[in-house]
Amino acid sequence: MIEYATRVRVRYAETDQMGFVYYGRYLEWFEVGRNELLRSIDMPYRRLEQDGYWLPVIEAHCEYKKPARYDDEVTIVSRLAELPRLKIRIDYQILHENQMLAEGYTLHIFTNNKGQVARPPKYFIEHLKRYYTTENRES
Amino acid sequence: MIEYATRVRVRYAETDQMGFVYYGRYLEWFEVGRNELLRSIDMPYRRLEQDGYWLPVIEAHCEYKKPARYDDEVTIVSRLAELPRLKIRIDYQILHENQMLAEGYTLHIFTNNKGQVARPPKYFIEHLKRYYTTENRES
Amino acid sequence: MIEYATRVRVRYAETDQMGFVYYGRYLEWFEVGRNELLRSIDMPYRRLEQDGYWLPVIEAHCEYKKPARYDDEVTIVSRLAELPRLKIRIDYQILHENQMLAEGYTLHIFTNNKGQVARPPKYFIEHLKRYYTTENRES
Amino acid sequence: MIEYATRVRVRYAETDQMGFVYYGRYLEWFEVGRNELLRSIDMPYRRLEQDGYWLPVIEAHCEYKKPARYDDEVTIVSRLAELPRLKIRIDYQILHENQMLAEGYTLHIFTNNKGQVARPPKYFIEHLKRYYTTENRES
Repeated sequence: MIEYATRVRVRYAETDQMGFVYYGRYLEWFEVGRNELLRSIDMPYRRLEQDGYWLPVIEAHCEYKKPARYDDEVTIVSRLAELPRLKIRIDYQILHENQMLAEGYTLHIFTNNKGQVARPPKYFIEHLKRYYTTENRES
Repeated sequence: MIEYATRVRVRYAETDQMGFVYYGRYLEWFEVGRNELLRSIDMPYRRLEQDGYWLPVIEAHCEYKKPARYDDEVTIVSRLAELPRLKIRIDYQILHENQMLAEGYTLHIFTNNKGQVARPPKYFIEHLKRYYTTENRES
Repeated sequence: MIEYATRVRVRYAETDQMGFVYYGRYLEWFEVGRNELLRSIDMPYRRLEQDGYWLPVIEAHCEYKKPARYDDEVTIVSRLAELPRLKIRIDYQILHENQMLAEGYTLHIFTNNKGQVARPPKYFIEHLKRYYTTENRES
Repeated sequence: MIEYATRVRVRYAETDQMGFVYYGRYLEWFEVGRNELLRSIDMPYRRLEQDGYWLPVIEAHCEYKKPARYDDEVTIVSRLAELPRLKIRIDYQILHENQMLAEGYTLHIFTNNKGQVARPPKYFIEHLKRYYTTENRES
């Protein structure tokens, strides 16, 4: 399992007139989370795009438990629980002071940069395998 | 069942560098859809807030089938499939030229304007009952 | 002078915790305004992009007079006061119930789709000339 | 003069189909900049709001020199050039690798939390005076 935690400070722009963060903005934080998760394993998404691959979202889900508020520094925990095959699923938790504010996931496919479904690049899968197989490997 | 269709023109601001609408922006369209659905039955959300009620989102889900593009005029179909009790579920479809671009739902609870869980206002439930019971009523 | 008025309904997403529309969101409305202004003279911006031209913003300015509020239907008046040469300036007013909420402008240049400064397409300038010269033409 | 530099990583959500950051999003970065500037002098904006003061924007201006791109880490330099009286002006520069991407300013007034114009709180002005007068003071 690959897991990475990163932090964002809630922007005023992200609040709505209820005084909480607007529900659609959490999906931006999910993006920040997976972006930093990929960077943490030396596979920045920018590089994938430069190599002609896209990872469009085909499904997004979020459950909102407690509101996030302006100026809070929230933690985004992102997890790649399984070695990706044709689809990649990433799970997220949004936390503030040890309280869970929200959790959800996104599901992605690989496409080429014309939007046509593609196999993930070999170097990407090979690289990720290292994180998933060592612990179970007998030697 | 209450259903309502409304249209939005895709803004340049809503696109991202893939050339498609950013996935988080669909949740704004869902908001536009339920806002107009509530207005269509003379229960504008603005009035609920003026009466001291909020309808925060506790769950949101979206499946992305085909990309929405800049300047497309997309249709948002919103449906309130069941008479709300403590939770309200609204289903959405985003369409363009008879193609389904995305579908999803949001789940809401009623709170007072301090964020504490509340029963829905009676006038709201009474008003909605008209849409759900007539078809089954014998006369 | 070319002028066009269009309307948008304020989204909940556009408000912030002050209860008013967030100041950055007005620039999206300016975009909606100029988009519809260009469509109104049969020169939709989408067509310019399809022809390989971009109109990036090089300057934006907005003065905020009165707050816009959730669910208000505001009017965006956009004006192309002068025949564009190398730069295009568009002026905007945001109105609600005959009150001026905000006014501002954007300044654009033409580039090709690699971001290099370009002359505006001839058909664009020729087309626009019709709106500016007739009134002064002697016959 | 009070000056503060902070950094943000460009989000995919902030780009548009030109492949650059959407022009309206820079105003969010200005907000991040002034938020951190006020925190840096122990006057976080959150505290002002808790004390019943708002600082709505009455004017915003931005000049775009070079595009910001996805995943760039840009620096926001914010400056409070003068001791505020009834209005506060903050200047901003957005930089990336020593290149100026954009610069602009925002102008704010103080209001109470009903939106009525107010004098700035005394403790705020007294606190800021320390940054502006010491250098000129004789004795």
